[in-house]
Amino acid sequence: MKIEAVDFFYLSMPEVTTEGDGSQDALLVRVAAGGYVGWGECEASPLVSIAAFVCPMSHGACRPVGASVLGQRLERPDDIQRIAAQIELDSMDLLQAPHTWSGVEIALWDLLGKMRGEPVWKLLGYWATYGKLPYASQLFGDTPAETYQLAVAARAQNFRAVKFGWGPIGRGNLQTDIEHFRAAREGLGKDCLLMVDVGQIFGHDVEAAAARLPILAEVGAVWLEEPFHTSALDSYAALSRRGTVKLAGGEGAHNFYMAQHLIDYGHVGFIQIDTGRIGGIGPAKRVADYAVSKGVRFVNHTFTSHLALSASLQPYAGVRTDEICEYPFAPKALARELTSNHLLRDSDGRIVPPDAPGLGIEINHEAARRYLVEVEIKAKNKVLFSSNAQTDTSV
Amino acid sequence: MKIEAVDFFYLSMPEVTTEGDGSQDALLVRVAAGGYVGWGECEASPLVSIAAFVCPMSHGACRPVGASVLGQRLERPDDIQRIAAQIELDSMDLLQAPHTWSGVEIALWDLLGKMRGEPVWKLLGYWATYGKLPYASQLFGDTPAETYQLAVAARAQNFRAVKFGWGPIGRGNLQTDIEHFRAAREGLGKDCLLMVDVGQIFGHDVEAAAARLPILAEVGAVWLEEPFHTSALDSYAALSRRGTVKLAGGEGAHNFYMAQHLIDYGHVGFIQIDTGRIGGIGPAKRVADYAVSKGVRFVNHTFTSHLALSASLQPYAGVRTDEICEYPFAPKALARELTSNHLLRDSDGRIVPPDAPGLGIEINHEAARRYLVEVEIKAKNKVLFSSNAQTDTSV
Repeated sequence: MKIEAVDFFYLSMPEVTTEGDGSQDALLVRVAAGGYVGWGECEASPLVSIAAFVCPMSHGACRPVGASVLGQRLERPDDIQRIAAQIELDSMDLLQAPHTWSGVEIALWDLLGKMRGEPVWKLLGYWATYGKLPYASQLFGDTPAETYQLAVAARAQNFRAVKFGWGPIGRGNLQTDIEHFRAAREGLGKDCLLMVDVGQIFGHDVEAAAARLPILAEVGAVWLEEPFHTSALDSYAALSRRGTVKLAGGEGAHNFYMAQHLIDYGHVGFIQIDTGRIGGIGPAKRVADYAVSKGVRFVNHTFTSHLALSASLQPYAGVRTDEICEYPFAPKALARELTSNHLLRDSDGRIVPPDAPGLGIEINHEAARRYLVEVEIKAKNKVLFSSNAQTDTSV
Repeated sequence: MKIEAVDFFYLSMPEVTTEGDGSQDALLVRVAAGGYVGWGECEASPLVSIAAFVCPMSHGACRPVGASVLGQRLERPDDIQRIAAQIELDSMDLLQAPHTWSGVEIALWDLLGKMRGEPVWKLLGYWATYGKLPYASQLFGDTPAETYQLAVAARAQNFRAVKFGWGPIGRGNLQTDIEHFRAAREGLGKDCLLMVDVGQIFGHDVEAAAARLPILAEVGAVWLEEPFHTSALDSYAALSRRGTVKLAGGEGAHNFYMAQHLIDYGHVGFIQIDTGRIGGIGPAKRVADYAVSKGVRFVNHTFTSHLALSASLQPYAGVRTDEICEYPFAPKALARELTSNHLLRDSDGRIVPPDAPGLGIEINHEAARRYLVEVEIKAKNKVLFSSNAQTDTSV
């Protein structure tokens, strides 16, 4: 069968704020082939990602992503890899391409799974799935008192692991950060796993990050996430050598190599991959395999919908030793409502990706329509994209 | 003064083909501040790069590039660095951002130079410029006979260095490649420098690239350029260890770190930077400084206009030991006609960046208008970009 159509749906909350909450909009992707439909999600700027699918060709190595996808053969996982390799060459100079391709790639896996009647994790070669312990992922409060309340609330929902991120950390003085870290631990109690994410705030400044290590060790943080720019490998390595707290990073990786380098040169203890950015499920699985071989723990990065969550769990679903997963705890209504079913914790407090074919997630079409944004892109006297003129406008 | 306006002009040849010729379109950027105007050029997909400037915000770390630029203070080089740092945080999750920002950054340097009455290379701290030996940069012919003719033609124009790239190399069998390399050397004669660029064709396959090393050594190639994906550092390192021909790469770097890693981990002998992609002149200068400290040669990557050429020479204009430069030899009419003046070879066959304020390049407005492409981008019920509604439509 051939890939007949790829449609993009830009969804957004009515109001988008500057908070570091990635669930305020979404780019949903639908792929049709041979009577089947697959769904995926890009974790990226929706408008720019759509533009990268439809833009005019600039030259042989700067072609739109769509040129490598539409009309291609799709029968087996190898076909997805073949298309990915073609994009790597033909869209080499189109920087946004991996972010666009990620959502399409995920949809292709979903479609292939539905066609074969198998969950994606089986297509990836796993025989079984192992439950992952979800950590409630949320932003720090504006004040330590607020952080404390958020910690208490997460514990009240029986989360055994909680991550706090971004917010005021690294933007004020050290003492404020210390108070936030202590408030988080106090609110969570002694036994709850605590992770801390500082969203690249220290750039490549090793000493600024290192100043936070003693307090992070004191509150028993499992990891310090993204102290630096994704590519500041030397800074990662220098901070890793301090040894007191393991480092985590990788959500910014937009290809396999970037993740590999964070492991080999940055010496992270946890490699965090967003399938919606790295080029989809294929390269994420390759990172999971590589991490196992290097004794590094693979963790998903997911801050949006349960469609993205299912896609992000597939790459390491069958790895028993990688048992932590990020779980969007308090996403915006759009991300909650986008899917009809959700990955809920079992009696052991763990989640597994669905056994249903593909990604096992159903789109809530009514909700998707409600958040749909109208988009029109024209260039060279052609309408390149119109949200009103897609194959089937009914989401 | 404040940055008052940033306008983008998408220019294109009437026909764009799949050949690897990056001069088939261009994204010209004009910045206005305090009564001055600066010009820059992005080496990237024009439509996608415009979208990254105007797109709606997705969240605090995925803001449009424009949000960090418009209205900002611009008095000194530090201001450009400050804006760059803000984009690094506020557009962290917008993959296309560095490609968009590059052209804007270049225009800001041009404007600052004009305001101060100084060439950009002086603003960068250089006291003098040193002539660069331009290599005529062109694509391989479709056949070895054609490659031979192209080599003869370049020599007839007195180029003392010539680079052949892309085309059929690595796409057929080894014997064909051998014939192309020999044809190039025969056409150039004994004394002309010969560089070979294979445009990432070997992905990360070290042995496929290594099979070409003996013939490249035989024809005396100065370097083998881009055998692999920009981020395939291990493959670069493995091929470097073979030792027979120096490696060159880096045009795909979209931040300082990527160039640094090609030097430190990939062990390239020549680091090639496109100021229109890496984030502009500032990070390119940082790479030039780093390369000097590591005994690696800095070379510009430029395949488009002389505006881009001047911008790409500034970062290493004052480094005497880096004496080779890429010179767009046979660009499309658009790239030739876009500027009123050109960087021509002196009696010694060398070129230097202009002594005139800024980048010292004048835009040919009539030509720019002739190649202008109409673009309109609408989302969320707003016109985000219209080529007809810019500050001043007269280019």
